[in-house]
Amino acid sequence: MPLSIGIDLGGSHLGVGLVDTTGAIQDFKEIKIDNLASPATVLTLVSDTVKEVTKKAPSVSAVGIGLPGNHDSARGITRFSPNFPSWHNVSITDPLSKSLQLPVFMLNDVRAATLGELHFGAGKGVANLVMLAIGTGIGGGVVANRQLLIGPQEAAGEVGHMTIMPNGPLCNCGNRGCLEALASGPSIAARGAEAILHGRSPKLQERVTTLGDLSAKLISEVASGGDPEAARILEEAGDALGIGIANLAVILNPDLFILGGGVALAGKPLFDAIRRSLTKHLFMLKPETISIVPAALGVRAGLTGAAAYGFLRTNTPIP
Amino acid sequence: MPLSIGIDLGGSHLGVGLVDTTGAIQDFKEIKIDNLASPATVLTLVSDTVKEVTKKAPSVSAVGIGLPGNHDSARGITRFSPNFPSWHNVSITDPLSKSLQLPVFMLNDVRAATLGELHFGAGKGVANLVMLAIGTGIGGGVVANRQLLIGPQEAAGEVGHMTIMPNGPLCNCGNRGCLEALASGPSIAARGAEAILHGRSPKLQERVTTLGDLSAKLISEVASGGDPEAARILEEAGDALGIGIANLAVILNPDLFILGGGVALAGKPLFDAIRRSLTKHLFMLKPETISIVPAALGVRAGLTGAAAYGFLRTNTPIP
Repeated sequence: MPLSIGIDLGGSHLGVGLVDTTGAIQDFKEIKIDNLASPATVLTLVSDTVKEVTKKAPSVSAVGIGLPGNHDSARGITRFSPNFPSWHNVSITDPLSKSLQLPVFMLNDVRAATLGELHFGAGKGVANLVMLAIGTGIGGGVVANRQLLIGPQEAAGEVGHMTIMPNGPLCNCGNRGCLEALASGPSIAARGAEAILHGRSPKLQERVTTLGDLSAKLISEVASGGDPEAARILEEAGDALGIGIANLAVILNPDLFILGGGVALAGKPLFDAIRRSLTKHLFMLKPETISIVPAALGVRAGLTGAAAYGFLRTNTPIP
Repeated sequence: MPLSIGIDLGGSHLGVGLVDTTGAIQDFKEIKIDNLASPATVLTLVSDTVKEVTKKAPSVSAVGIGLPGNHDSARGITRFSPNFPSWHNVSITDPLSKSLQLPVFMLNDVRAATLGELHFGAGKGVANLVMLAIGTGIGGGVVANRQLLIGPQEAAGEVGHMTIMPNGPLCNCGNRGCLEALASGPSIAARGAEAILHGRSPKLQERVTTLGDLSAKLISEVASGGDPEAARILEEAGDALGIGIANLAVILNPDLFILGGGVALAGKPLFDAIRRSLTKHLFMLKPETISIVPAALGVRAGLTGAAAYGFLRTNTPIP
């Protein structure tokens, strides 16, 4: 069976997997990395780790690498990556390809995760889907007719930056009222912090030692325990996500929405709030026809999806 | 050269064209129709007109029919059409196919216009585009990798129903703050009427005999003549359209946006207002990289696009 190397290059960890065309990870290695290191240092680490993982492997078709940020993937360059703040216009694929003597392809990490879910996860067999990865930011991926959309500036799938509330809270991108500014992990946590600081949620306060303990999952648990303020915070995040999903539904009418990332771990209370929002904001389609499922592959979506991208770019069929 | 029949079935007019694979209309006939007529009456008229247009033609590959509303095109049924308020779940393609002895395919009228612009108009040679038809409503079409998106409920492209302003003005669909409720022809005209009724725009009042005279084009002309209230109305419509286009840009990152419909005739002042809105609301992409062009084919986009759909569905290559 053909094999591909999938690389998940985050700001603190590097994951390298040897993946077959069923998405099974045959071998895997994870190491810690320093996000202030130079590109040369990090790329040497990547190359060494890939060599280790491929040592015992038969021939490998390709290497796919998923990396947060915006890239010029045709030229194999990362324009910027939030995980490596000092990297600007860094060549990624050429040095790796030279060192590994293999074709190397790169793409945005959430687009990689979308391919992972499409080929091996919650989207298996689905023609048209949208993935939302709701974590520190909100990234996404759009699949039309089983093809991942990229776009000339490689911004297709940046669903976290649609405007949900004009003149709403400031987003990291500079715009106001982006979905990311209303429903990302830090946005939800910030509302939890606000509720605690104003004394509006003693139950949430009980569960938190430092502000770093605040998460959508925790707020969801406290809401389920009957705390009205936590419930309100979750409802507002769900409302914003529901508007975003309703917008995507009328624009793309996909077969499926897949929600991943840490915020999706808030589970049923969040998914229920999203459903209520769809009922309020979606009239062109019956809200009950919208399929929304949690991501199936968790943190391995990006790695297996990067490997899938390697298969796709080398015309290796994925069954 | 292969030929296809394109049909544009509106609420007041029926257009039938004999179209070749370059998009040239070889023969054309337009007749008035009564939108309260029964499906049988209208379909007989359609069939008779097609027969007349094809009389002198050599063999025709297919018939494509563009019709406002939502359809089950696989079964050839229109679920509802705003142009024919009494039609519900009416079979369109089967009776026409029997009568004409040709394969007949149907699709939403704006999706047809999108195909027209893609193959023969402003989108020629472009892989990824979004069309917005801004008229009585706001319809649209999304093309990814030169394929028109349809979706299981055939709602892909209903960009007029993305929420731009939660709790904004009521839309005909039932939602509040849809793009259509903020920037369609009647929405813009209603703001003009409001300005006149409150005495805020004597210059606009001068130009209008009845409320039916109000149009985005007229308001644009009055704005260009220095009327601040008309300018404000245009600015607000442009702001809503800019938010919608910014959302579509981060979701799809298309190569091109095409604006058609009567409102697009408001011209440069509206396009300039859209540009200002992009600068306010789009940060993930450089606003100056967004290409926005007027539709090239006008009212013939739907007819030639319906013919193109006939070619596509019968695997007839369009050069």
